[in-house]
Amino acid sequence: MCSMVLGGMGSFMAGGHRVRISGEPCEDISFSAGFSDYRYDPNGEYWIEQSYVQYFIPHQQRLALPVVLVHGGGLTGSCWETHPDCRMGWQESLIRRGVSTYVADSVERGRAGFAALPGTWSGRPLQRSAEESWSLFRIGKRADFAARRPFDGSQFPLEAFDDLVRQTVPRWLTNTEAQIAALVAVVRIVGPCYLVGHSQGGGHAMAVAEREPELVRATVALEPHGGPSRFERAAGRPMLHVQGDFIDRDDTWTRLARSAKESVKAWRDGGGVADTLDLPREGLMGNSHMLMMDRNSETVLDLVMQWLTRIDASHSNLEACS
Amino acid sequence: MCSMVLGGMGSFMAGGHRVRISGEPCEDISFSAGFSDYRYDPNGEYWIEQSYVQYFIPHQQRLALPVVLVHGGGLTGSCWETHPDCRMGWQESLIRRGVSTYVADSVERGRAGFAALPGTWSGRPLQRSAEESWSLFRIGKRADFAARRPFDGSQFPLEAFDDLVRQTVPRWLTNTEAQIAALVAVVRIVGPCYLVGHSQGGGHAMAVAEREPELVRATVALEPHGGPSRFERAAGRPMLHVQGDFIDRDDTWTRLARSAKESVKAWRDGGGVADTLDLPREGLMGNSHMLMMDRNSETVLDLVMQWLTRIDASHSNLEACS
Repeated sequence: MCSMVLGGMGSFMAGGHRVRISGEPCEDISFSAGFSDYRYDPNGEYWIEQSYVQYFIPHQQRLALPVVLVHGGGLTGSCWETHPDCRMGWQESLIRRGVSTYVADSVERGRAGFAALPGTWSGRPLQRSAEESWSLFRIGKRADFAARRPFDGSQFPLEAFDDLVRQTVPRWLTNTEAQIAALVAVVRIVGPCYLVGHSQGGGHAMAVAEREPELVRATVALEPHGGPSRFERAAGRPMLHVQGDFIDRDDTWTRLARSAKESVKAWRDGGGVADTLDLPREGLMGNSHMLMMDRNSETVLDLVMQWLTRIDASHSNLEACS
Repeated sequence: MCSMVLGGMGSFMAGGHRVRISGEPCEDISFSAGFSDYRYDPNGEYWIEQSYVQYFIPHQQRLALPVVLVHGGGLTGSCWETHPDCRMGWQESLIRRGVSTYVADSVERGRAGFAALPGTWSGRPLQRSAEESWSLFRIGKRADFAARRPFDGSQFPLEAFDDLVRQTVPRWLTNTEAQIAALVAVVRIVGPCYLVGHSQGGGHAMAVAEREPELVRATVALEPHGGPSRFERAAGRPMLHVQGDFIDRDDTWTRLARSAKESVKAWRDGGGVADTLDLPREGLMGNSHMLMMDRNSETVLDLVMQWLTRIDASHSNLEACS
């Protein structure tokens, strides 16, 4: 593998807000054998509902604007990093392609942290079983999980399935609005950018594009399960909707794909320009829901980058003319 | 800022184990507006108690072995990244100094994920208030939090205090053993290395060194609050214990520093070679517990690197002789 030259790297927290806890009892706790008999006072000031972002700026930049990557439900930004089977992920590939790359951990996920305070979040976090990952990530039918028999022609690296399961994290079902608000804070810090979201993150990306049309110059929704049903600020704005294989082999996915198409239609109804990249129709067969991890992930990224490069060129021309 | 040349970067999950959940009721849930009426089945196979690691390999390496960084309690690996006041963190500084750098998120923290399964972990996660961060991180007395009045001469970048609070994450009190086990898995993947742990991570580093003496070639414990009370495999092995300022201004820290010194004594009693870097005694005044974030963090790292470079040289000589 060749070397890569970075102009910079770093991380930051974005968004969130203060909450104040009061009237809760203190408690004597032990942090460790060496740190016992400590009086824990839960009352006080906290920050919750922020997002974490890590970024890498390549020395030579080939796109005018950076790309912001937003993971899906039950996952963190690590899904864009090294694949479970040790191949290079989209994050590193984008950097090597000369793209400034920002990877977010959404509210409650990964390094963004979660709220463990009385009375803040409703419901409980749900964890995803290997069986649910198998079927929801469209690697194969749930009934074929025990035998680890994937769909015929699946591009998912089967030997790495357990490592994908180790990457999944619990999720609340009630934080959609907080996650979108923190992602709005992210793009306000990053500035004009291309927003790429996967699954739940694809719907979030569309919602953020609607709130910050001047900042989100292009939206890529990778297998979103729906998004806003109405766009009022999409006029003239580009979106790419990407969809993999085996959709019709799974009832849930048939339904989710329909919901995604309704959001894409709403984007067009709002005057937006939406392209669809249906991978099987382009001759790319076998993609799971985790298309950034599939064996042909670099080819999928090639297609996304072709689209982004075209947007970027017209955008750069526009900037040059203005 | 000058460019930096990387030979490689990546991430991986380490350790953890499978658990199986059965006999739990299914539940109809809604992931989002576009993804409702889904039957969630909590029964099945899960992975829990793994660690997440992100690494960067500089093109030109100036130490024979990589450094593994382990964060403290209520924090994630992000504490080694960009400082809350936007200065370069130890992670980037180490890479720029030519050190292969591995940053771990321990079990339950950050991208390692936490277990949200019935009957797995006992107790509940505790979140750290701004007030507790203020006093436990020795920025100032708790009574002086409201006025944001730090200790005289504090090196902590006060204007960034809220951003530090945004980096804190909840913690369970019951996962010490699982965290140490996953860190053992980390060093088994990384191979021979120098292990640097902060606070709770400092105690963990000592424990991992005791379990994998062939892999952990040097241990740096930054303000650990204690560690093992007995070492049987420390003979001839180097450790550096680093301690900041204002210890005697806080009752908790007076106690924690005593506990840390007992562990350092145990290391020596086991035949280990322990050096102490008492920063005020070296003329570095004003360091908080978050010494990797303090204004003089680069100077603190200079001192740690001087020690590590000496160990590295003798280690390289040993390798050359064998």
